[in-house]
Amino acid sequence: MKITIKKARKKDFKKVLGLINELAKFEKLEPPGKKEAKRLFRDAFGEKAKFKILTAAEGKNILGYAFYFFTYSSFLAKPTLYLEDLFITERSRNLGIGKLFFKELLRIALKNKCGRMEWCVLDWNKDAIEFYNKLGAKPLSDWIYYRKVL
Amino acid sequence: MKITIKKARKKDFKKVLGLINELAKFEKLEPPGKKEAKRLFRDAFGEKAKFKILTAAEGKNILGYAFYFFTYSSFLAKPTLYLEDLFITERSRNLGIGKLFFKELLRIALKNKCGRMEWCVLDWNKDAIEFYNKLGAKPLSDWIYYRKVL
Repeated sequence: MKITIKKARKKDFKKVLGLINELAKFEKLEPPGKKEAKRLFRDAFGEKAKFKILTAAEGKNILGYAFYFFTYSSFLAKPTLYLEDLFITERSRNLGIGKLFFKELLRIALKNKCGRMEWCVLDWNKDAIEFYNKLGAKPLSDWIYYRKVL
Repeated sequence: MKITIKKARKKDFKKVLGLINELAKFEKLEPPGKKEAKRLFRDAFGEKAKFKILTAAEGKNILGYAFYFFTYSSFLAKPTLYLEDLFITERSRNLGIGKLFFKELLRIALKNKCGRMEWCVLDWNKDAIEFYNKLGAKPLSDWIYYRKVL
């Protein structure tokens, strides 16, 4: 069956949430709980959406998702498409779905006059790193990412 | 004279642009040119503002600026205040202006129910790194930041 990249709809939310949980497990991070799931739904589909979700759909199945929003570069004076999550469920890897996501994300970035696409990857995720390098992306090795938890 | 942190207004733009140029020089990066400056003005003050700017004002002088926007954490299901630029002009460093900026940014982040503040720092910028460590921020040392230039 054909795999297509689509905007997530409200009816897809439960399946996407399942994949977000799979990603958190894969990254050994804390997944969203019930309260978080409610906020995610509101922030994805409410009046003031805070991010966008794409899905890789094969009929009624959702095999992966991409979670993105726009940031901004002050020096370029252009928006950046920032990819917060990209995940493909284990049994559907190596089918070219990552490339399909990137093709669509690139189209969206250019449509929105972005100068860059950016994302972070865990340093032990060698498959992802290899995939990103093949795409012509570069690690920003002289920058350190800082976080203050509130 | 008292230093206060304020939202940038249209009339501040020229001075802020001067500081953005100073920061680019300091970071050995390409500063915005004339076209970029026009886009920055539109994206800062137009109907669909893409980022926000704070200034450190001392009377009519602007001693520094912070350039920020909101990103989003899928796992926390909360926005993140992302600090794209923080810059204080050389002669005004070590006066506590960085702390004033962070105090105001923290207030804004909490008001917007953010779970985190995040930013990047160049690995040779030891003064900034020391300042961020004192704030209780942590480097995300197991993540690699990737960029694809479009």
